[in-house]
Formats: sequence, C-alpha cells, structure tokens
Amino acid sequence: MSPSQQPNGERRDGDDSKSRVTIVGSGNWGSVAAKLIASNAIKLPSFHDEVRMWVFEEVLPNGEKLTDVINKTNENVKYLPGIKLGRNVVADPDLENAVKEANMLVFVTPHQFMDGICKKLDGKIRGEVEAISLVKGMEVKKEGPRMISSLISKQLGINCCVLMGANIANEIALEKFSEATVGYRESKEIADTWVQLFSTPYFMVTPAHDVEGVELCGTLKNVVAIAAGFVDGLEMGNNTKAAIMRIGLREMKALSKLLFPSVNDCTFFESCGVADLITTCLGGRNRRVAEAYAQNGGKRSFDELEAEMLQGQKLQGVSTAKEVYEVLKHNGWLEMFPLFATVHQICIGRLKPEAIVHYREYKA
Amino acid sequence: MSPSQQPNGERRDGDDSKSRVTIVGSGNWGSVAAKLIASNAIKLPSFHDEVRMWVFEEVLPNGEKLTDVINKTNENVKYLPGIKLGRNVVADPDLENAVKEANMLVFVTPHQFMDGICKKLDGKIRGEVEAISLVKGMEVKKEGPRMISSLISKQLGINCCVLMGANIANEIALEKFSEATVGYRESKEIADTWVQLFSTPYFMVTPAHDVEGVELCGTLKNVVAIAAGFVDGLEMGNNTKAAIMRIGLREMKALSKLLFPSVNDCTFFESCGVADLITTCLGGRNRRVAEAYAQNGGKRSFDELEAEMLQGQKLQGVSTAKEVYEVLKHNGWLEMFPLFATVHQICIGRLKPEAIVHYREYKA
Repeated sequence: MSPSQQPNGERRDGDDSKSRVTIVGSGNWGSVAAKLIASNAIKLPSFHDEVRMWVFEEVLPNGEKLTDVINKTNENVKYLPGIKLGRNVVADPDLENAVKEANMLVFVTPHQFMDGICKKLDGKIRGEVEAISLVKGMEVKKEGPRMISSLISKQLGINCCVLMGANIANEIALEKFSEATVGYRESKEIADTWVQLFSTPYFMVTPAHDVEGVELCGTLKNVVAIAAGFVDGLEMGNNTKAAIMRIGLREMKALSKLLFPSVNDCTFFESCGVADLITTCLGGRNRRVAEAYAQNGGKRSFDELEAEMLQGQKLQGVSTAKEVYEVLKHNGWLEMFPLFATVHQICIGRLKPEAIVHYREYKA
Repeated sequence: MSPSQQPNGERRDGDDSKSRVTIVGSGNWGSVAAKLIASNAIKLPSFHDEVRMWVFEEVLPNGEKLTDVINKTNENVKYLPGIKLGRNVVADPDLENAVKEANMLVFVTPHQFMDGICKKLDGKIRGEVEAISLVKGMEVKKEGPRMISSLISKQLGINCCVLMGANIANEIALEKFSEATVGYRESKEIADTWVQLFSTPYFMVTPAHDVEGVELCGTLKNVVAIAAGFVDGLEMGNNTKAAIMRIGLREMKALSKLLFPSVNDCTFFESCGVADLITTCLGGRNRRVAEAYAQNGGKRSFDELEAEMLQGQKLQGVSTAKEVYEVLKHNGWLEMFPLFATVHQICIGRLKPEAIVHYREYKA
C-alpha cells in the first residue's frame, strides 16, 4: 500500500501506523456497528480499510457456514439480512486470529458472554490496544454493578470506552437518523477517535466524560421500560407514562450518582440517557412483555409471557430490577427509589401492576 | 365559622386569617385546576372552603347561562363534562367580584387574553395577593419572551409563581397519575403553599426555584412537538423520534439559559421539562398537525390543515417557531439552534419535512 496523506498533512509510511479495528460480536447490533465502522475505515486514512468481525460460527440450514456466507455475500444473513455490511468487512470464526493484529477492539456481544471472551483474549492481544464496549445490561451485584468496561479494562489491562444511545439496530441499518454517546474515562483524544469511527451523517455521536454514567444508563433504563409497560397495559394514558418515565430517569440519575460520585448530571441529557429511555419506553421487548403482564392483571408470570412472546430471548429489565432491588435493600436505599423498588415488587407478584402509580405508599 | 386548628398547632380566629382562592379562567384546564384546588381547600384548615371560579359567561344551546349550570350541577358542562368540580366551587361571571376577596389568584386562560384581564384587574384586587400562572404559550418577542408571570407581576404589582407539567387536563380530571412543577422566584414558603393547594395522591407537585425556566418549558416544547410530528409523518421510527426529542430538549435548555442566565439545568429534569415534552410529543395537536403536514409532503399548508383538523383551535407551535426563529436571527444564534431553526423553515415551506434530520447542513 502506498503512503497516504493524513488530514493534518503528515505522511505515514506503511501499514503499521494505521489503526486496525476488530469487532468482537456479530449479532444484530454488532453487524450494524460493523457497517458503520466499515464505511468510515475505508474513507479515513488513519485506518486500515479492512474491518475484521469475529463471528461465533454457525451452520446455516442450507449447510453453509455463516462466516462463509458473510464473506461471500457481504451480508449477515442470519442477524441482519438484507443489509450490505461493506466489502471491507471480513468475518472470522477464530477469535484469537480476529483480534491478533487489531489495536482497536469493539465489544458487542450479549453481556453474559463477556467474562468468557475476556478470559480467552487474555495474553492474545497486541500491546497497545484501545477498546470500546457496546454491551448493554451489566449485572448489578450487591457489591456494585459489574461494569463491562471495567471487566475489559481489568482482564485485558487496556483502556475501555463505552458507546450507548437510542440505538435500535434495524433502524440504524436502514440509515434512519439516530444518535449515540461515547463515554470515556480519561483521554478525550481516544474518545474523539471512536466518535470519528462511528459517526455518519445519519448517526451522530457525542463524547461524554463519564464512562460509568453512560454505561449505567444502558442497564437501568430497562427497569423503567418495565414500569412504562405496566402503564401501557393499564391504559393510564400519556400523562402518566411521561410522569413514570421522568421519575425513572430521576432514579437512574440518583442511583448512578450514589454508586459513582463522579457521574455527571449532563450525561442524562445525552442520547444514552433521555433518548435511549424514550426509545426503550416506546418500543422494546421489556415494555411489551410488561404491558402484557399488566393486561393479565399479573396473573401470568413474566417467565410464562417471556417464553410465549420472545422466542427464547430473555428480558433484561426483570432481572435488573431484582438486582437493583437487592442493591437498594443492602444499602438501606429502598425508600429513596420508590419506582425501582415497586417495579421489582410487581414483577414478583408482591404488588399489583396498579401499584406503579401508588409507590409513595410503598413500605420496604 | 368556629376557630379551626392549624396543622402547626396555632389557632386562627375568624375568616380573615384564612386564604381565599379564586381561579381566573374556566376552560378545560381551568376546570380541572378548580377540582384539584377545591378538594384541598375543603380539607386544609388554612383555606376557606369556597373556591371561586371566574367564568366568561356563555349562553348554552338550551338558553341557560353557563355559570348557572355550573353552580346547579357542579359540572362545567361545556369544557369538562361529566366531572364533578366539588361542591365548594362557585362560578362567578363577574371578574371584579370574583377576585375582590381573594388573596390567592390562579390564572388559567388562553395567553392572548392575559393582557386584557390584567388591565381589568388593575386596582381591583386586595393588598396582599399571591398569584400563580398556569398559562402556557407566551409570545417570544425579539426583545425577549413575554413571560406571563412577569406580565401579572408588573401589571398588578404582585408576586407570581407558575405551574407547568405533563398535564393533559382530561387525564387528570379522571384522576390518572400525573405530576407538575411549581416555579417560584423567591419565597419557597409561598411555593410550598401552592404545592399544598394543588397536590393530591394522583397529582404530585414539586417546587423548582426557577420561574423563568419552568415557564419557558411550557412554550418551547411546542416547537419540539412540531419536529416530532414531522418524524412521525415521515415514519422515521422511534430511534429518530427519541433523538429529535432529545435535541429539542437540549435546545430548550440552551435557549432558556441564554435568555435568563439564572435558569437551572435541573428544571429540565422536572415534570415541566422532560415529562411535558414527552406527553406533548406522544399526543397533542401540534404533533398531530405536523404529522399530517409531513404526510402531505408539505404541500398542504399548516393554516389549511389547522382549519380542517382543529375546529377553530390554533396551533401554538407554528407561531412559537416563527417567533423563536426571529429571536435567534436577531441575536445571531441561528447556528446554535439547528432544530428550532429548521422547524420554522419547514413550517413556511422553505425546507422539506425531511430536513428535520439533516439540519446540520442547514445554513442561515
């Protein structure tokens, strides 16, 4: 490859000065992330054109391997059919091979796989690597939330940003206008590189100096979505729904600040905060199943409705509500978070769905 | 009347120590305000039971006067049919008579009537009077917004709070859970009195030390609702809608702070901010007509759609967008408020509805 001109006028000679990006994950959101990144990597002189995507190999009903089909058709026919990822996306079924040359790693898998992936990657990545997590839905343990960004940082000894926002993958795949927030810990410069790598005219990305606040938004919003679903199921109207969403946003902010005093109020005005909350409370499976739960007067369990409505997918909000409840109880904070506490009590059948608007009367 | 026990244990002798409330206005929201206040006045020992409501007299189709029917049936049959206001609500067609004994005035009329009402009340009210405005949709002039609270304060020489929030009158009338914000300038004690007078188990009211911020929310949100309507009309999905609502909230906050440096970020997390914005962007006539405008590709004017869809009611958002545009242009702020600026440009046909998500390319 010939030397290329940098935007700042410097010349870089050879490949080694260019960043190589690998995406760890290839589901619905991972595939959209690949499309976004690939469209930028090919244009930006500071990046290698090729974007590698680690794919958990599957054999398709016609006997072909998923990676072969992706590399042949340039489409993830299983998780994002009908969308071209970009010719510079290379699917790779071998995790170690996929990451070995990368200096920028994008993590986008279901959160329960992250532990295992980090263990596999330990000692297998390059020396100077930057990471970003698009993984939503951490576990919230009594001793504190298990931030995915911290897991990656600690296990692999690298810096890790997060990207969260109102990001329904299929809508972004169709290039409908959307936004996201990159949360970073220290280096604004690194955050700006991620912003540059993800931004397109239809996908506006903003940096926020608050990695914990941004990441917590992506998890706690699911509890509020359950509350919003109850309101919908009980047909309480837009007024009540708006009130519940607002109270939910306030509790997200308050709990994040209690857990991490560095969390910034402004974060909740970003896409990861209010916008993701709105999207999640308007559509989304948490809202939908909670709506059905309330319509049935709490007589059919979440497990039952989940099995019937979600074809094997699991609801994040119900388990997060349980975990948050335990954190609140453990710390003596239940009365400060009546909405979060009430959502869990309704989910386990201890309160009726109607209690979602009577939580002031709630006693721990 | 016998002396009554105060909550703080003091005795008050006679009527004069008790507050008398008059509601100036009796439309849909005014009638609901009367119901809320009447339910509290009758319970709180520091208030006279009677709540007076000034009603612009009308003769009903059956020949009866509206005030007579309200006083006979305890319902505002024209503007809030089917809802009992409380037996202690007295409708009064005479504005001067309605206010003469009151020391607490609640203003809740369309904003264009407020000038005339204040002129009529000048010199006709008691010495020590507190006011609150529920009037949304001030005019935003080049020299600054014409705050209704300031108009009342200046014309009548009295302190004036505001109450704003996600308040669809008919839903509150049905006692569905909702919230509101009381914005106050100085005295927290007065704000608390208003909070006490409006709060019910289904209507949660919170004070905010930011009268301008609270009042501006009630006006600027209508511009964002127009933008949200365009997104709906173009079927851009929940992601895009959430993004546009978020950007709108950010511009509401930024413009309010430019106009009044005392405006507080926290105000936008209150019911008057994010919650009212959500309600207005989910339902509401501004959103609805803007949706129709976009569906017609901007080929039918707002005036035409308004006439067809709103039976004589006028759209606040379109005129506010125009006024805001003039303020932005006058101050050289257009580039800082791409969403507000674009909404106006679309409303007057200078840009297509699709421009709502391309406003970064907008040039003043």
